[in-house]
Amino acid sequence: MHLCTYEHQGQTHVGWVKGSGIVSLTRALGDALSAHQPMIDLIAQWPQLQPRVQALQDAEPDVLLDQVRLLAPVPRPGKTLAIGLNYLDHVQEAIIGETRTVPDHQVWFTKLANAIHGPFDPIVLPRVSTMTDYEGEMVAIIGQRCRHVAPERAHEVVFGYCVGNDVSVRDIQKRTSQWTLGKSFDTHAPFGPWITTFDELPDPHALDLRCWVNGELRQSSNTRLMIHNVWAQIAQLSQVMTLEPGDVIFTGTCSGVGAAFSPPKFLQVGDTVRVEIEGLGAIVARCQAEDPED
Amino acid sequence: MHLCTYEHQGQTHVGWVKGSGIVSLTRALGDALSAHQPMIDLIAQWPQLQPRVQALQDAEPDVLLDQVRLLAPVPRPGKTLAIGLNYLDHVQEAIIGETRTVPDHQVWFTKLANAIHGPFDPIVLPRVSTMTDYEGEMVAIIGQRCRHVAPERAHEVVFGYCVGNDVSVRDIQKRTSQWTLGKSFDTHAPFGPWITTFDELPDPHALDLRCWVNGELRQSSNTRLMIHNVWAQIAQLSQVMTLEPGDVIFTGTCSGVGAAFSPPKFLQVGDTVRVEIEGLGAIVARCQAEDPED
Repeated sequence: MHLCTYEHQGQTHVGWVKGSGIVSLTRALGDALSAHQPMIDLIAQWPQLQPRVQALQDAEPDVLLDQVRLLAPVPRPGKTLAIGLNYLDHVQEAIIGETRTVPDHQVWFTKLANAIHGPFDPIVLPRVSTMTDYEGEMVAIIGQRCRHVAPERAHEVVFGYCVGNDVSVRDIQKRTSQWTLGKSFDTHAPFGPWITTFDELPDPHALDLRCWVNGELRQSSNTRLMIHNVWAQIAQLSQVMTLEPGDVIFTGTCSGVGAAFSPPKFLQVGDTVRVEIEGLGAIVARCQAEDPED
Repeated sequence: MHLCTYEHQGQTHVGWVKGSGIVSLTRALGDALSAHQPMIDLIAQWPQLQPRVQALQDAEPDVLLDQVRLLAPVPRPGKTLAIGLNYLDHVQEAIIGETRTVPDHQVWFTKLANAIHGPFDPIVLPRVSTMTDYEGEMVAIIGQRCRHVAPERAHEVVFGYCVGNDVSVRDIQKRTSQWTLGKSFDTHAPFGPWITTFDELPDPHALDLRCWVNGELRQSSNTRLMIHNVWAQIAQLSQVMTLEPGDVIFTGTCSGVGAAFSPPKFLQVGDTVRVEIEGLGAIVARCQAEDPED
Protein backbone atom coordinates (compact mmCIF):
# COMPACT_ATOMS: atom_id res chain seq x y z
CA MET A 1 0.00 0.00 0.00
CA HIS A 2 1.24 3.49 -0.85
CA LEU A 3 0.28 6.14 1.70
CA CYS A 4 0.89 9.80 1.09
CA THR A 5 0.32 13.23 2.57
CA TYR A 6 -0.92 15.79 0.07
CA GLU A 7 -2.26 19.27 -0.27
CA HIS A 8 -5.34 19.90 -2.40
CA GLN A 9 -7.37 23.08 -2.55
CA GLY A 10 -5.63 24.44 0.51
CA GLN A 11 -6.33 21.38 2.66
CA THR A 12 -3.85 18.77 3.87
CA HIS A 13 -4.95 15.14 3.55
CA VAL A 14 -3.47 11.74 4.04
CA GLY A 15 -4.31 9.40 1.21
CA TRP A 16 -3.98 5.99 -0.35
CA VAL A 17 -2.30 6.21 -3.72
CA LYS A 18 -3.82 3.76 -6.21
CA GLY A 19 -2.42 4.05 -9.71
CA SER A 20 -2.95 7.61 -10.87
CA GLY A 21 -5.54 8.41 -8.20
CA ILE A 22 -5.66 9.04 -4.46
CA VAL A 23 -8.38 8.01 -2.01
CA SER A 24 -8.52 10.54 0.80
CA LEU A 25 -8.18 8.80 4.15
CA THR A 26 -8.73 12.12 5.87
CA ARG A 27 -12.25 12.04 4.44
CA ALA A 28 -12.80 8.30 4.87
CA LEU A 29 -11.48 7.94 8.42
CA GLY A 30 -12.87 11.19 9.77
CA ASP A 31 -12.19 11.85 13.41
CA ALA A 32 -9.70 9.02 13.79
CA LEU A 33 -6.99 11.37 12.48
CA SER A 34 -6.11 14.67 14.12
CA ALA A 35 -5.65 17.77 12.00
CA HIS A 36 -2.12 18.45 13.20
CA GLN A 37 -0.48 15.06 12.59
CA PRO A 38 -2.84 12.85 10.58
CA MET A 39 -0.14 10.57 9.16
CA ILE A 40 1.39 9.94 12.58
CA ASP A 41 -2.09 9.14 13.88
CA LEU A 42 -2.69 6.78 10.96
CA ILE A 43 0.60 4.99 11.63
CA ALA A 44 0.10 4.83 15.39
CA GLN A 45 -3.41 3.38 15.01
CA TRP A 46 -2.64 1.17 12.01
CA PRO A 47 -3.68 -2.13 13.65
CA GLN A 48 -7.14 -0.64 14.27
CA LEU A 49 -7.43 1.44 11.09
CA GLN A 50 -6.01 -0.94 8.51
CA PRO A 51 -9.30 -2.89 8.09
CA ARG A 52 -11.14 0.37 7.44
CA VAL A 53 -8.53 1.35 4.87
CA GLN A 54 -8.64 -2.07 3.20
CA ALA A 55 -12.41 -1.74 2.91
CA LEU A 56 -11.76 1.17 0.52
CA GLN A 57 -10.15 -1.24 -1.95
CA ASP A 58 -12.74 -0.49 -4.64
CA ALA A 59 -13.36 3.15 -3.77
CA GLU A 60 -13.20 5.73 -6.53
CA PRO A 61 -10.27 8.14 -6.13
CA ASP A 62 -11.09 11.52 -4.62
CA VAL A 63 -8.45 13.24 -6.68
CA LEU A 64 -5.77 12.48 -9.23
CA LEU A 65 -2.09 12.41 -8.26
CA ASP A 66 -1.28 15.11 -10.78
CA GLN A 67 -3.86 17.46 -9.26
CA VAL A 68 -2.20 17.58 -5.86
CA ARG A 69 1.03 18.68 -4.23
CA LEU A 70 2.63 15.79 -2.41
CA LEU A 71 4.14 16.76 0.94
CA ALA A 72 6.68 14.79 2.92
CA PRO A 73 4.67 11.71 3.97
CA VAL A 74 5.34 12.67 7.60
CA PRO A 75 5.53 16.47 7.43
CA ARG A 76 6.59 16.89 11.07
CA PRO A 77 8.31 13.79 12.35
CA GLY A 78 8.96 13.63 16.07
CA LYS A 79 12.59 12.77 15.26
CA THR A 80 14.62 12.46 12.10
CA LEU A 81 17.85 10.50 12.43
CA ALA A 82 20.42 9.82 9.76
CA ILE A 83 23.35 7.42 9.68
CA GLY A 84 26.66 8.44 8.13
CA LEU A 85 29.30 6.34 6.35
CA ASN A 86 27.03 3.34 5.86
CA TYR A 87 28.05 2.13 2.38
CA LEU A 88 31.66 1.04 1.93
CA ASP A 89 32.08 2.76 -1.44
CA HIS A 90 30.92 6.04 0.10
CA VAL A 91 33.25 5.64 3.07
CA GLN A 92 36.13 5.14 0.66
CA GLU A 93 35.38 7.96 -1.77
CA ALA A 94 37.40 11.04 -0.97
CA ILE A 95 35.08 13.83 0.14
CA ILE A 96 36.80 17.19 0.15
CA GLY A 97 40.20 15.58 0.18
CA GLU A 98 39.61 13.26 3.14
CA THR A 99 40.29 9.57 3.22
CA ARG A 100 38.24 7.57 5.61
CA THR A 101 37.92 4.13 7.12
CA VAL A 102 34.85 2.27 8.31
CA PRO A 103 34.04 3.46 11.84
CA ASP A 104 33.82 0.93 14.65
CA HIS A 105 30.29 2.00 15.51
CA GLN A 106 27.26 3.46 13.78
CA VAL A 107 27.67 7.21 13.26
CA TRP A 108 24.41 9.11 13.82
CA PHE A 109 23.39 12.68 13.22
CA THR A 110 20.06 14.43 12.82
CA LYS A 111 18.11 16.44 10.32
CA LEU A 112 15.98 19.08 12.00
CA ALA A 113 12.30 19.89 11.55
CA ASN A 114 12.57 22.67 8.99
CA ALA A 115 14.68 20.54 6.70
CA ILE A 116 11.76 18.14 6.12
CA HIS A 117 10.48 18.80 2.62
CA GLY A 118 8.12 17.52 -0.05
CA PRO A 119 9.28 14.95 -2.63
CA PHE A 120 8.91 17.29 -5.61
CA ASP A 121 9.52 20.64 -3.94
CA PRO A 122 12.58 22.72 -4.84
CA ILE A 123 15.78 22.34 -2.84
CA VAL A 124 17.00 25.76 -1.73
CA LEU A 125 20.74 26.36 -2.19
CA PRO A 126 21.76 28.51 0.76
CA ARG A 127 23.41 31.84 0.14
CA VAL A 128 26.13 31.11 2.69
CA SER A 129 27.64 28.24 0.68
CA THR A 130 28.44 27.08 -2.84
CA MET A 131 28.92 23.47 -1.72
CA THR A 132 25.44 21.95 -1.49
CA ASP A 133 25.46 18.24 -2.27
CA TYR A 134 22.98 15.37 -2.78
CA GLU A 135 22.88 11.96 -1.06
CA GLY A 136 20.26 9.52 -2.33
CA GLU A 137 19.05 7.25 0.47
CA MET A 138 16.38 4.82 1.51
CA VAL A 139 14.28 6.14 4.40
CA ALA A 140 12.56 3.96 7.00
CA ILE A 141 9.47 5.07 8.93
CA ILE A 142 8.94 3.75 12.45
CA GLY A 143 5.54 2.17 13.09
CA GLN A 144 5.30 1.84 16.83
CA ARG A 145 6.63 3.11 20.10
CA CYS A 146 9.57 0.93 21.08
CA ARG A 147 12.78 0.76 23.09
CA HIS A 148 15.57 -1.84 23.22
CA VAL A 149 14.50 -3.64 20.07
CA ALA A 150 16.62 -6.67 19.16
CA PRO A 151 17.78 -6.75 15.52
CA GLU A 152 15.80 -9.97 14.96
CA ARG A 153 12.59 -8.15 15.85
CA ALA A 154 13.30 -4.75 14.37
CA HIS A 155 11.24 -5.50 11.24
CA GLU A 156 8.17 -5.56 13.50
CA VAL A 157 8.49 -1.87 14.35
CA VAL A 158 8.90 -0.53 10.79
CA PHE A 159 5.81 0.91 9.15
CA GLY A 160 7.28 1.42 5.71
CA TYR A 161 9.90 2.90 3.43
CA CYS A 162 10.45 5.98 1.28
CA VAL A 163 13.03 7.57 -1.00
CA GLY A 164 15.05 10.42 0.50
CA ASN A 165 17.77 12.90 -0.28
CA ASP A 166 20.09 13.74 2.63
CA VAL A 167 21.10 17.11 1.20
CA SER A 168 24.39 18.25 2.74
CA VAL A 169 26.20 21.58 2.74
CA ARG A 170 29.76 20.33 2.78
CA ASP A 171 31.71 23.34 3.99
CA ILE A 172 29.34 23.96 6.88
CA GLN A 173 29.19 20.22 7.63
CA LYS A 174 32.98 19.96 7.85
CA ARG A 175 33.98 23.19 9.50
CA THR A 176 33.38 21.87 13.00
CA SER A 177 33.49 18.36 14.44
CA GLN A 178 29.71 18.09 14.40
CA TRP A 179 27.80 17.78 11.12
CA THR A 180 24.50 19.09 12.52
CA LEU A 181 24.31 22.48 10.83
CA GLY A 182 25.52 21.30 7.42
CA LYS A 183 22.82 18.62 7.41
CA SER A 184 19.88 20.76 8.49
CA PHE A 185 19.41 23.71 6.18
CA ASP A 186 15.75 24.40 5.42
CA THR A 187 14.42 22.10 2.63
CA HIS A 188 17.38 19.71 2.89
CA ALA A 189 15.53 16.57 3.94
CA PRO A 190 13.07 15.87 1.11
CA PHE A 191 11.51 12.41 1.15
CA GLY A 192 8.60 10.54 -0.35
CA PRO A 193 6.90 10.28 -2.74
CA TRP A 194 4.80 8.14 -0.36
CA ILE A 195 5.28 5.46 2.28
CA THR A 196 5.36 1.97 0.82
CA THR A 197 4.08 -0.13 3.70
CA PHE A 198 6.19 -2.94 5.12
CA ASP A 199 3.85 -5.68 3.88
CA GLU A 200 4.70 -4.80 0.26
CA LEU A 201 8.40 -5.05 0.89
CA PRO A 202 9.39 -8.21 2.68
CA ASP A 203 13.08 -7.44 2.20
CA PRO A 204 14.14 -3.79 2.22
CA HIS A 205 17.76 -4.86 1.82
CA ALA A 206 17.60 -5.85 -1.85
CA LEU A 207 16.58 -2.66 -3.63
CA ASP A 208 18.40 -0.80 -6.38
CA LEU A 209 19.08 2.81 -5.43
CA ARG A 210 20.00 5.44 -8.04
CA CYS A 211 20.49 9.17 -8.16
CA TRP A 212 20.72 11.37 -11.25
CA VAL A 213 21.57 15.05 -11.60
CA ASN A 214 20.24 16.57 -14.82
CA GLY A 215 19.83 13.07 -16.21
CA GLU A 216 23.42 12.04 -15.48
CA LEU A 217 23.62 8.93 -13.31
CA ARG A 218 25.71 9.85 -10.26
CA GLN A 219 24.89 7.19 -7.69
CA SER A 220 23.98 3.57 -8.25
CA SER A 221 23.92 0.92 -5.57
CA ASN A 222 21.68 -1.53 -3.80
CA THR A 223 20.38 -1.43 -0.23
CA ARG A 224 21.95 -4.83 0.46
CA LEU A 225 25.28 -2.99 0.53
CA MET A 226 24.51 -1.09 3.72
CA ILE A 227 27.20 -1.73 6.34
CA HIS A 228 24.60 -1.58 9.13
CA ASN A 229 21.22 -2.68 7.84
CA VAL A 230 17.91 -1.20 8.96
CA TRP A 231 17.48 -3.79 11.70
CA ALA A 232 20.91 -3.01 13.17
CA GLN A 233 20.14 0.70 12.96
CA ILE A 234 16.89 0.34 14.87
CA ALA A 235 18.59 -1.84 17.47
CA GLN A 236 21.26 0.81 18.02
CA LEU A 237 18.91 3.80 18.11
CA SER A 238 16.41 2.10 20.40
CA GLN A 239 19.17 1.30 22.87
CA VAL A 240 19.45 5.05 23.38
CA MET A 241 15.99 6.46 22.87
CA THR A 242 12.34 5.55 22.57
CA LEU A 243 11.34 5.42 18.92
CA GLU A 244 7.83 6.51 18.05
CA PRO A 245 5.33 6.21 15.20
CA GLY A 246 6.34 8.43 12.31
CA ASP A 247 9.98 8.80 13.34
CA VAL A 248 12.14 8.99 10.24
CA ILE A 249 15.46 7.24 9.62
CA PHE A 250 17.72 8.14 6.71
CA THR A 251 19.66 4.92 6.18
CA GLY A 252 22.82 6.16 4.46
CA THR A 253 24.11 6.93 0.98
CA CYS A 254 26.41 5.16 -1.50
CA SER A 255 29.29 6.59 -3.53
CA GLY A 256 28.89 9.23 -6.21
CA VAL A 257 28.13 12.34 -4.18
CA GLY A 258 29.15 15.62 -5.78
CA ALA A 259 31.98 16.28 -3.32
CA ALA A 260 33.77 13.13 -4.43
CA PHE A 261 34.28 14.27 -8.04
CA SER A 262 37.41 16.12 -9.07
CA PRO A 263 36.60 18.89 -9.49
CA PRO A 264 33.55 18.55 -7.21
CA LYS A 265 30.10 18.63 -8.78
CA PHE A 266 28.06 20.60 -6.29
CA LEU A 267 24.44 21.48 -6.98
CA GLN A 268 23.79 24.58 -9.06
CA VAL A 269 20.68 26.69 -9.47
CA GLY A 270 18.47 24.99 -12.05
CA ASP A 271 19.88 21.49 -11.50
CA THR A 272 17.36 18.67 -11.22
CA VAL A 273 18.09 15.86 -8.76
CA ARG A 274 16.21 12.59 -9.06
CA VAL A 275 16.51 9.77 -6.53
CA GLU A 276 14.81 6.49 -7.31
CA ILE A 277 14.59 3.24 -5.37
CA GLU A 278 13.23 0.00 -6.75
CA GLY A 279 9.67 -0.49 -5.54
CA LEU A 280 9.54 2.78 -3.61
CA GLY A 281 9.22 5.31 -6.46
CA ALA A 282 11.22 8.45 -7.11
CA ILE A 283 11.58 11.98 -5.79
CA VAL A 284 12.64 14.86 -8.01
CA ALA A 285 13.78 18.34 -7.00
CA ARG A 286 14.86 21.37 -8.90
CA CYS A 287 17.50 23.49 -7.16
CA GLN A 288 16.77 27.13 -6.61
CA ALA A 289 18.64 30.02 -5.07
CA GLU A 290 17.71 31.19 -1.59
CA ASP A 291 15.36 34.12 -1.82
CA PRO A 292 17.45 37.20 -0.96
CA GLU A 293 14.39 38.67 0.78
CA ASP A 294 14.21 35.89 3.37
CA MET B 1 6.58 36.56 34.33
CA HIS B 2 7.13 32.87 35.03
CA LEU B 3 5.25 30.55 32.69
CA CYS B 4 5.11 26.82 33.25
CA THR B 5 3.59 23.65 31.92
CA TYR B 6 2.17 21.38 34.61
CA GLU B 7 0.16 18.28 35.19
CA HIS B 8 -2.65 18.31 37.72
CA GLN B 9 -5.29 15.65 38.21
CA GLY B 10 -4.35 14.00 34.95
CA GLN B 11 -4.65 17.19 32.89
CA THR B 12 -1.85 19.20 31.31
CA HIS B 13 -2.05 22.98 31.72
CA VAL B 14 0.05 25.97 30.97
CA GLY B 15 0.17 28.38 33.86
CA TRP B 16 1.45 31.61 35.31
CA VAL B 17 3.52 30.97 38.41
CA LYS B 18 2.93 33.66 41.06
CA GLY B 19 4.71 33.00 44.33
CA SER B 20 3.57 29.62 45.59
CA GLY B 21 0.54 29.48 43.32
CA ILE B 22 -0.27 28.94 39.66
CA VAL B 23 -2.99 30.61 37.60
CA SER B 24 -4.09 28.21 34.86
CA LEU B 25 -3.84 29.89 31.49
CA THR B 26 -5.34 26.80 29.90
CA ARG B 27 -8.52 27.66 31.82
CA ALA B 28 -8.28 31.43 31.40
CA LEU B 29 -7.44 31.53 27.70
CA GLY B 30 -9.67 28.67 26.62
CA ASP B 31 -9.70 27.95 22.92
CA ALA B 32 -6.72 30.17 22.14
CA LEU B 33 -4.45 27.26 23.10
CA SER B 34 -4.57 23.87 21.40
CA ALA B 35 -4.50 20.70 23.48
CA HIS B 36 -1.44 19.26 21.83
CA GLN B 37 0.98 22.19 22.14
CA PRO B 38 -0.50 24.84 24.41
CA MET B 39 2.82 26.45 25.42
CA ILE B 40 3.96 26.77 21.81
CA ASP B 41 0.59 28.35 20.99
CA LEU B 42 0.95 30.73 23.93
CA ILE B 43 4.42 31.76 22.79
CA ALA B 44 3.45 32.09 19.13
CA GLN B 45 0.45 34.28 19.98
CA TRP B 46 2.10 36.21 22.81
CA PRO B 47 1.60 39.68 21.30
CA GLN B 48 -2.16 39.02 21.18
CA LEU B 49 -2.46 37.00 24.40
CA GLN B 50 -0.20 38.97 26.72
CA PRO B 51 -2.86 41.59 27.55
CA ARG B 52 -5.30 38.81 28.51
CA VAL B 53 -2.63 37.23 30.69
CA GLN B 54 -1.74 40.57 32.30
CA ALA B 55 -5.41 41.08 33.13
CA LEU B 56 -5.10 38.06 35.44
CA GLN B 57 -2.67 40.01 37.64
CA ASP B 58 -4.93 39.81 40.68
CA ALA B 59 -6.48 36.42 39.95
CA GLU B 60 -6.51 33.82 42.69
CA PRO B 61 -4.27 30.83 41.92
CA ASP B 62 -6.03 27.74 40.60
CA VAL B 63 -3.59 25.45 42.31
CA LEU B 64 -0.46 25.54 44.45
CA LEU B 65 2.96 24.79 42.98
CA ASP B 66 3.49 21.95 45.39
CA GLN B 67 0.29 20.26 44.27
CA VAL B 68 1.36 19.83 40.68
CA ARG B 69 4.02 18.07 38.65
CA LEU B 70 5.94 20.56 36.57
CA LEU B 71 6.73 19.33 33.06
CA ALA B 72 9.33 20.72 30.71
CA PRO B 73 7.93 24.18 29.91
CA VAL B 74 7.85 23.15 26.23
CA PRO B 75 7.21 19.40 26.45
CA ARG B 76 7.62 18.80 22.70
CA PRO B 77 9.81 21.47 21.15
CA GLY B 78 9.96 21.54 17.36
CA LYS B 79 13.75 21.57 17.64
CA THR B 80 16.23 21.34 20.49
CA LEU B 81 19.72 22.56 19.68
CA ALA B 82 22.75 22.61 21.95
CA ILE B 83 26.12 24.29 21.59
CA GLY B 84 29.29 22.56 22.68
CA LEU B 85 32.56 23.97 24.03
CA ASN B 86 31.09 27.38 24.79
CA TYR B 87 32.84 28.28 28.07
CA LEU B 88 36.62 28.56 28.01
CA ASP B 89 37.12 26.73 31.30
CA HIS B 90 35.07 23.80 29.99
CA VAL B 91 37.00 23.74 26.73
CA GLN B 92 40.20 23.55 28.73
CA GLU B 93 39.20 20.93 31.25
CA ALA B 94 40.35 17.48 30.20
CA ILE B 95 37.34 15.30 29.48
CA ILE B 96 38.23 11.62 29.25
CA GLY B 97 41.87 12.43 28.71
CA GLU B 98 41.37 14.90 25.85
CA THR B 99 42.87 18.34 25.62
CA ARG B 100 40.99 20.80 23.50
CA THR B 101 41.24 24.23 22.03
CA VAL B 102 38.52 26.76 21.27
CA PRO B 103 36.98 25.82 17.90
CA ASP B 104 36.96 28.40 15.10
CA HIS B 105 33.19 28.14 14.75
CA GLN B 106 30.20 27.37 16.92
CA VAL B 107 29.83 23.61 17.44
CA TRP B 108 26.19 22.48 17.37
CA PHE B 109 24.47 19.22 18.16
CA THR B 110 20.93 18.24 19.03
CA LYS B 111 18.95 16.67 21.83
CA LEU B 112 16.07 14.60 20.49
CA ALA B 113 12.42 14.62 21.46
CA ASN B 114 12.39 11.81 24.01
CA ALA B 115 15.24 13.40 25.95
CA ILE B 116 13.04 16.36 26.89
CA HIS B 117 12.15 15.96 30.55
CA GLY B 118 10.53 17.68 33.49
CA PRO B 119 12.59 19.88 35.84
CA PHE B 120 12.12 17.64 38.88
CA ASP B 121 11.72 14.26 37.20
CA PRO B 122 14.34 11.55 37.70
CA ILE B 123 17.23 11.23 35.27
CA VAL B 124 17.50 7.65 34.06
CA LEU B 125 21.02 6.22 34.00
CA PRO B 126 21.12 3.93 30.97
CA ARG B 127 22.07 0.32 31.42
CA VAL B 128 24.49 0.48 28.48
CA SER B 129 26.87 2.91 30.20
CA THR B 130 28.40 3.79 33.55
CA MET B 131 29.49 7.23 32.33
CA THR B 132 26.45 9.48 32.57
CA ASP B 133 27.42 13.09 33.29
CA TYR B 134 25.73 16.42 34.10
CA GLU B 135 26.14 19.78 32.36
CA GLY B 136 24.33 22.72 33.95
CA GLU B 137 23.28 25.26 31.31
CA MET B 138 21.11 28.24 30.60
CA VAL B 139 18.39 27.48 28.07
CA ALA B 140 16.84 30.04 25.69
CA ILE B 141 13.35 29.67 24.23
CA ILE B 142 12.63 31.13 20.80
CA GLY B 143 9.62 33.45 20.60
CA GLN B 144 8.93 33.87 16.93
CA ARG B 145 9.48 32.39 13.52
CA CYS B 146 12.66 33.87 12.11
CA ARG B 147 15.50 33.34 9.67
CA HIS B 148 18.74 35.26 9.11
CA VAL B 149 18.58 37.22 12.36
CA ALA B 150 21.41 39.68 12.92
CA PRO B 151 23.06 39.44 16.36
CA GLU B 152 21.95 43.01 17.12
CA ARG B 153 18.32 41.98 16.73
CA ALA B 154 18.48 38.48 18.14
CA HIS B 155 17.09 39.62 21.51
CA GLU B 156 13.84 40.40 19.70
CA VAL B 157 13.20 36.74 18.89
CA VAL B 158 13.79 35.29 22.37
CA PHE B 159 10.71 34.55 24.45
CA GLY B 160 12.49 33.67 27.66
CA TYR B 161 15.01 31.59 29.57
CA CYS B 162 15.16 28.44 31.67
CA VAL B 163 17.60 26.28 33.60
CA GLY B 164 18.72 23.07 31.87
CA ASN B 165 20.90 20.03 32.30
CA ASP B 166 22.54 18.74 29.12
CA VAL B 167 22.97 15.22 30.45
CA SER B 168 25.67 13.39 28.48
CA VAL B 169 26.68 9.76 28.28
CA ARG B 170 30.39 10.17 27.72
CA ASP B 171 31.44 6.81 26.29
CA ILE B 172 28.60 6.80 23.77
CA GLN B 173 29.18 10.50 22.99
CA LYS B 174 32.85 9.91 22.25
CA ARG B 175 32.88 6.54 20.54
CA THR B 176 32.11 8.03 17.11
CA SER B 177 32.79 11.45 15.65
CA GLN B 178 29.19 12.57 16.19
CA TRP B 179 27.89 13.25 19.69
CA THR B 180 24.22 12.72 18.79
CA LEU B 181 23.51 9.42 20.55
CA GLY B 182 25.43 10.26 23.73
CA LYS B 183 23.42 13.46 24.08
CA SER B 184 19.95 12.05 23.46
CA PHE B 185 19.17 9.25 25.84
CA ASP B 186 15.60 9.36 27.12
CA THR B 187 15.21 11.85 30.04
CA HIS B 188 18.57 13.53 29.33
CA ALA B 189 17.33 17.03 28.51
CA PRO B 190 15.51 18.21 31.64
CA PHE B 191 14.77 21.92 31.75
CA GLY B 192 12.59 24.39 33.62
CA PRO B 193 11.35 24.99 36.22
CA TRP B 194 9.48 27.54 34.13
CA ILE B 195 10.14 30.11 31.40
CA THR B 196 11.22 33.46 32.79
CA THR B 197 10.04 35.85 30.09
CA PHE B 198 12.51 38.13 28.34
CA ASP B 199 11.04 41.32 29.84
CA GLU B 200 12.16 40.20 33.31
CA LEU B 201 15.71 39.63 32.17
CA PRO B 202 17.10 42.52 30.19
CA ASP B 203 20.56 40.95 30.17
CA PRO B 204 20.76 37.15 30.08
CA HIS B 205 24.55 37.40 29.96
CA ALA B 206 25.12 38.33 33.59
CA LEU B 207 23.69 35.41 35.55
CA ASP B 208 25.42 33.16 38.05
CA LEU B 209 25.14 29.51 37.07
CA ARG B 210 25.79 26.70 39.55
CA CYS B 211 25.44 22.95 39.67
CA TRP B 212 25.61 20.69 42.71
CA VAL B 213 25.68 16.91 43.03
CA ASN B 214 24.52 15.66 46.43
CA GLY B 215 25.08 19.15 47.78
CA GLU B 216 28.68 19.36 46.56
CA LEU B 217 29.26 22.38 44.32
CA ARG B 218 30.63 21.07 41.03
CA GLN B 219 30.08 23.90 38.56
CA SER B 220 30.08 27.63 39.19
CA SER B 221 30.25 30.26 36.50
CA ASN B 222 28.37 33.18 35.02
CA THR B 223 26.60 33.42 31.67
CA ARG B 224 28.78 36.39 30.71
CA LEU B 225 31.57 33.87 30.21
CA MET B 226 29.97 32.23 27.19
CA ILE B 227 32.33 32.32 24.23
CA HIS B 228 29.40 32.79 21.81
CA ASN B 229 26.56 34.58 23.54
CA VAL B 230 22.89 33.90 22.94
CA TRP B 231 22.68 36.57 20.23
CA ALA B 232 25.59 35.08 18.30
CA GLN B 233 24.07 31.62 18.69
CA ILE B 234 20.73 32.72 17.25
CA ALA B 235 22.48 34.51 14.39
CA GLN B 236 24.39 31.34 13.51
CA LEU B 237 21.45 28.97 13.79
CA SER B 238 19.09 31.20 11.84
CA GLN B 239 21.58 31.41 8.98
CA VAL B 240 20.96 27.69 8.52
CA MET B 241 17.38 27.08 9.54
CA THR B 242 14.12 28.77 10.32
CA LEU B 243 13.68 29.07 14.07
CA GLU B 244 10.16 28.78 15.45
CA PRO B 245 8.22 29.58 18.61
CA GLY B 246 9.11 27.14 21.35
CA ASP B 247 12.38 25.98 19.84
CA VAL B 248 14.87 25.28 22.62
CA ILE B 249 18.54 26.23 22.74
CA PHE B 250 20.93 24.79 25.33
CA THR B 251 23.59 27.48 25.54
CA GLY B 252 26.61 25.54 26.81
CA THR B 253 28.17 24.46 30.08
CA CYS B 254 31.12 25.62 32.17
CA SER B 255 33.86 23.57 33.81
CA GLY B 256 33.28 21.05 36.56
CA VAL B 257 31.55 18.22 34.72
CA GLY B 258 32.03 14.76 36.20
CA ALA B 259 34.26 13.53 33.37
CA ALA B 260 36.86 16.18 34.18
CA PHE B 261 37.60 14.92 37.69
CA SER B 262 40.36 12.42 38.32
CA PRO B 263 39.02 9.88 38.89
CA PRO B 264 35.84 10.91 37.06
CA LYS B 265 32.70 11.59 39.08
CA PHE B 266 29.94 10.15 36.93
CA LEU B 267 26.36 10.10 38.14
CA GLN B 268 25.34 7.18 40.33
CA VAL B 269 21.93 5.80 41.20
CA GLY B 270 20.53 7.91 44.04
CA ASP B 271 22.59 11.01 43.26
CA THR B 272 20.76 14.32 43.29
CA VAL B 273 21.74 16.95 40.71
CA ARG B 274 20.70 20.54 41.21
CA VAL B 275 21.27 23.26 38.62
CA GLU B 276 20.47 26.84 39.59
CA ILE B 277 20.70 30.08 37.64
CA GLU B 278 20.30 33.53 39.14
CA GLY B 279 16.80 34.80 38.43
CA LEU B 280 15.67 31.66 36.61
CA GLY B 281 15.22 29.24 39.49
CA ALA B 282 16.52 25.72 39.93
CA ILE B 283 15.91 22.22 38.62
CA VAL B 284 16.59 19.14 40.71
CA ALA B 285 16.78 15.52 39.61
CA ARG B 286 17.42 12.27 41.38
CA CYS B 287 19.24 9.67 39.32
CA GLN B 288 17.66 6.28 38.94
CA ALA B 289 18.59 3.07 37.19
CA GLU B 290 16.95 2.21 33.92
CA ASP B 291 14.06 -0.14 34.51
CA PRO B 292 15.27 -3.58 33.46
CA GLU B 293 11.74 -4.32 32.19
CA ASP B 294 11.84 -1.52 29.58
